[in-house]
Amino acid sequence: MNVVVEKIERADPDVVKALGECGVATVHEAQGRKGLLAAYMRPIYRGARIGASAVTISAPPADNWMVHVAIEQVRPGDILVLAPTSPSDAGYFGDLLATSMLARGGVGLIIDAGVRDIADLTEMGFPVWSKAVFAQGTVKETLGSVNVPVVCADELVNPGDVIVADDDGVCVVRREEAEAVLAQAKARLANEEAKRARLAAGELGLDIYDMRGRLAGKGLKYV
Amino acid sequence: MNVVVEKIERADPDVVKALGECGVATVHEAQGRKGLLAAYMRPIYRGARIGASAVTISAPPADNWMVHVAIEQVRPGDILVLAPTSPSDAGYFGDLLATSMLARGGVGLIIDAGVRDIADLTEMGFPVWSKAVFAQGTVKETLGSVNVPVVCADELVNPGDVIVADDDGVCVVRREEAEAVLAQAKARLANEEAKRARLAAGELGLDIYDMRGRLAGKGLKYV
Amino acid sequence: MNVVVEKIERADPDVVKALGECGVATVHEAQGRKGLLAAYMRPIYRGARIGASAVTISAPPADNWMVHVAIEQVRPGDILVLAPTSPSDAGYFGDLLATSMLARGGVGLIIDAGVRDIADLTEMGFPVWSKAVFAQGTVKETLGSVNVPVVCADELVNPGDVIVADDDGVCVVRREEAEAVLAQAKARLANEEAKRARLAAGELGLDIYDMRGRLAGKGLKYV
Amino acid sequence: MNVVVEKIERADPDVVKALGECGVATVHEAQGRKGLLAAYMRPIYRGARIGASAVTISAPPADNWMVHVAIEQVRPGDILVLAPTSPSDAGYFGDLLATSMLARGGVGLIIDAGVRDIADLTEMGFPVWSKAVFAQGTVKETLGSVNVPVVCADELVNPGDVIVADDDGVCVVRREEAEAVLAQAKARLANEEAKRARLAAGELGLDIYDMRGRLAGKGLKYV
Amino acid sequence: MNVVVEKIERADPDVVKALGECGVATVHEAQGRKGLLAAYMRPIYRGARIGASAVTISAPPADNWMVHVAIEQVRPGDILVLAPTSPSDAGYFGDLLATSMLARGGVGLIIDAGVRDIADLTEMGFPVWSKAVFAQGTVKETLGSVNVPVVCADELVNPGDVIVADDDGVCVVRREEAEAVLAQAKARLANEEAKRARLAAGELGLDIYDMRGRLAGKGLKYV
Amino acid sequence: MNVVVEKIERADPDVVKALGECGVATVHEAQGRKGLLAAYMRPIYRGARIGASAVTISAPPADNWMVHVAIEQVRPGDILVLAPTSPSDAGYFGDLLATSMLARGGVGLIIDAGVRDIADLTEMGFPVWSKAVFAQGTVKETLGSVNVPVVCADELVNPGDVIVADDDGVCVVRREEAEAVLAQAKARLANEEAKRARLAAGELGLDIYDMRGRLAGKGLKYV
Repeated sequence: MNVVVEKIERADPDVVKALGECGVATVHEAQGRKGLLAAYMRPIYRGARIGASAVTISAPPADNWMVHVAIEQVRPGDILVLAPTSPSDAGYFGDLLATSMLARGGVGLIIDAGVRDIADLTEMGFPVWSKAVFAQGTVKETLGSVNVPVVCADELVNPGDVIVADDDGVCVVRREEAEAVLAQAKARLANEEAKRARLAAGELGLDIYDMRGRLAGKGLKYV
Repeated sequence: MNVVVEKIERADPDVVKALGECGVATVHEAQGRKGLLAAYMRPIYRGARIGASAVTISAPPADNWMVHVAIEQVRPGDILVLAPTSPSDAGYFGDLLATSMLARGGVGLIIDAGVRDIADLTEMGFPVWSKAVFAQGTVKETLGSVNVPVVCADELVNPGDVIVADDDGVCVVRREEAEAVLAQAKARLANEEAKRARLAAGELGLDIYDMRGRLAGKGLKYV
Repeated sequence: MNVVVEKIERADPDVVKALGECGVATVHEAQGRKGLLAAYMRPIYRGARIGASAVTISAPPADNWMVHVAIEQVRPGDILVLAPTSPSDAGYFGDLLATSMLARGGVGLIIDAGVRDIADLTEMGFPVWSKAVFAQGTVKETLGSVNVPVVCADELVNPGDVIVADDDGVCVVRREEAEAVLAQAKARLANEEAKRARLAAGELGLDIYDMRGRLAGKGLKYV
Repeated sequence: MNVVVEKIERADPDVVKALGECGVATVHEAQGRKGLLAAYMRPIYRGARIGASAVTISAPPADNWMVHVAIEQVRPGDILVLAPTSPSDAGYFGDLLATSMLARGGVGLIIDAGVRDIADLTEMGFPVWSKAVFAQGTVKETLGSVNVPVVCADELVNPGDVIVADDDGVCVVRREEAEAVLAQAKARLANEEAKRARLAAGELGLDIYDMRGRLAGKGLKYV
Repeated sequence: MNVVVEKIERADPDVVKALGECGVATVHEAQGRKGLLAAYMRPIYRGARIGASAVTISAPPADNWMVHVAIEQVRPGDILVLAPTSPSDAGYFGDLLATSMLARGGVGLIIDAGVRDIADLTEMGFPVWSKAVFAQGTVKETLGSVNVPVVCADELVNPGDVIVADDDGVCVVRREEAEAVLAQAKARLANEEAKRARLAAGELGLDIYDMRGRLAGKGLKYV
Repeated sequence: MNVVVEKIERADPDVVKALGECGVATVHEAQGRKGLLAAYMRPIYRGARIGASAVTISAPPADNWMVHVAIEQVRPGDILVLAPTSPSDAGYFGDLLATSMLARGGVGLIIDAGVRDIADLTEMGFPVWSKAVFAQGTVKETLGSVNVPVVCADELVNPGDVIVADDDGVCVVRREEAEAVLAQAKARLANEEAKRARLAAGELGLDIYDMRGRLAGKGLKYV
């Protein structure tokens, strides 16, 4: 019942990277307003902006044994995504594990629980999005699984799915949809560029998006 | 039932600006310890400190149509104050709307819900105090109202009221009380200056405020 | 029933300082994974890292009278630890009290409630770990106690206990255990140094800690 | 600044009573989906269902002095509505105050804080909707106000407004709109009766409300 | 992108019913400690205990249009499982929709949002497990989907999965695992019966489960 | 470091029982407004009212091994008080453990975590006050301690302390203060009886407690 799936498929690295550059809000909209992890998932420092492939961890509460198991499965460009099997804010991850991740080419951590040593992680430039910052130590007693589908912070994440994360939070893109979503995201960004110029020049969204008639039709009154 | 009030009164711009300079804690005390929005209203970046006139928005949950309507009503020095009609942490506002606000002279946003594109907003120097940072997209389907009284984060805000916001949070001052509150705030600051010098010199609050007798009278024992 | 204990014992100042340098996560582990205050206790700014002796305050909700009383008891190297007698997020403490603390040699505040003037406190370099940032003013009407044992953010703190606090949060060490905990913490740091080098070189925790056999024994399957 | 308004206007007692009989959900809808206090306001026992006129209390955190002041202002058919000036879950109210309320003809309590003695209150049939059940005692030290507008659990309540409360929570109706809202509520109830019969007979809302065309127009696909 | 899947597979009705009789705690354990929805999902009344097949709804926040769409898909023995696309506590469901559900043979509702008319629903014997009780009205403007996989209260639910719910909360069983889980659950219940008799007779779990040696081996000291 | 203290002192059983009969609110006030566990500790059913001696458990998150160890230490009239070493809402306790407790003369459970099988526990008349109702299973892997001081739901509880619990929540009384607190509680109840009669007759608290002068002195205005 507790398994490590060693071979997972990942999206094209160039697509993954490009999705990261588009950012969370754009990617979320581009795929039809889906994929966001819960708003409580916050970065430990500002300014990180990544696209990465998910290596998933289903771990017991306050037990970080499976993190060690998962790191062996990490390939360059991967990110760990940890979901506890019942709510926990324990500190599953700190600077030693980050050192190990960096040595393997891992690029970050998404954890629906706690993280610690954040001063060191910040200095190392190892980004983490977590539910909590908490030094609470963990044990290594109970098995979990690696690279199985998990629900992390309200969202399903499959191994190999693309994680996009920045100051706005975290968004997941299905591996098989990554390329199509990227195309939509790029189109959206191009479209926004034109809108931004008009708005900066003082035009109103009311006019650019032609909203006045529909507002009046719904009954909005100016008084 | 859904209205946009186009003509609102605002406080004297110099008074608004001066209140902003006094800061949240001072203004809150100066008006008798009232007017604070809930403690969960936090700035997206540190260091902003503003006084502004409120353009209020009552908006349905996860529907940002009224933000477009409201921006037309913004005059230089105004701030948007958005209260959803039922709890929401959706991301009603991002960098395009901020671009539009800046073009109109708007100076910020107070929102009892979510905001997104915070890396861009930070770079643009557009301050936001919000309940959440969340990229969740919104729809444009249901009417709300603009420039009606709203309850935002536990506090009543009328259109034209003065918003004071800094790293400590957000405080509202009734438009008609703005001048009187400013006078009280200035008096308080002057008074604090003297106190600060004495405290810095090592005097105790116990002595400066003459508390020892009253403490003993209430029964405090030193053991 | 309301008392101020004037004479408390403190740990050796060098031990206190050295514990602060070890940091929260290390000290927490070194003393057997205990002593952490709740995860919601967050610093008002990043980068502070201290060891200090606790002067404790049991205070009524939204009443900061006892803070003035406590400051008289502060000796150089002390930190205030305030626990309200029922939950409160009021702003018990601001820049004037911090000025007074600094004049007495006090080094910070741990408060299971709110703090205000955080822009000033940040500029002054006065670190605070709190449940909330909130400008809500307080009264001076009801007695509490100073230097009695308190439960602060889920953890018992006795007067004179050692407080270790950094970006990860807050940990308390019993005064009488301070020296032994420091020895354990130093041993742990030394041990981690060696591990860090091996992990940085690409060795896996699975191998360094010899986990594979035990994992297999518990039934973990690689598929 | 701390006042007791002795003379307030109330709505017609028959209208108040009839609104209570309509219930929270109906009244909320009838007045355009507004007026609900926050969802965390829960009754201490199931089955109470009331309409009453609000006597409002603005009280300091954990200080119930103003409850005594307010009870003198209670007329038969009134309900107390208490909002603390900063968040509190202290137990402002118990069986003695309920005894006093009943002796004055008061019919209940709405409190954005705590209540205690709920076993006794239940036996007495004195309904309370509160944020918390908590025995925490309060002091009588700091003034507040009675019969001023308050924001209680996210909603503005004026003295004399009509409070409707049942197992679903609490809704406020402006005094001056009470009669019109009652008419709307009755119309809604009559309309629902017909709908209920058709739904009970197995007809679908899709057909009764003629939704299929609009759903298809928006793009809903059956697969 | 918004779809209604009309044809879904369900588990054997006898298996579904028997799982309901086993109860949440037993079924959760029987399938390897998985499948629980979040602890905040509470029943609107005590004593309901059901097994049912899930008809799932992915709905926009505060928009209950898709509930009407979903009810057409309900077969006798089905339960609705509603997950909003972003957090909401609006009251999507009340007594009229329950009337419609009962007419179609539906047996309940699981909703990661609010429900209203709970006095009526209780009287009707229509059980609901929800995040909130809240009368907040909803709109019918934006499409969602019916019978697609949803994440509801931290757990993935596929259409046709088995929902087990009682006073302890809600548990989901994969449709294809239903029969095997039932067998495990029955074995567990039988085994518990024997244990219960020994415990009732005063034997200790320490002895029945033979724990003393392992406790000593881990280092537990009796002092 | 992990210990079971086998011999603890308890308060006089008649005092323990009598404190239970006084109830939480009275006992809390009688001992100077202290001793309350957090407001989130709620009973699984209404109407229980007990006094009992605490057998304390410090347990790892989601690991209920120590409950088995603790039950051996239970004497007739004892109650278990469980505090996890980091936050957990797992279901440590269900009907089998309650069966074992009842066989040993145990009378209830106070747990700052989850409980399950609450329908059975209710039927058995085994009262539990908990942070959550949650069926989440636990493991038996990591040691904790029994009969050591614990912080449970914000309050220190020593083994042998008296637990008073009813519909209002939970209060702890120090073993060595039990007799004095009981005397105070009885005096308070007697005093309240007289007050209740006067209030029921329509006298106001304002007059009974002679508050009018002090209110006027503080500046309260009637308008």
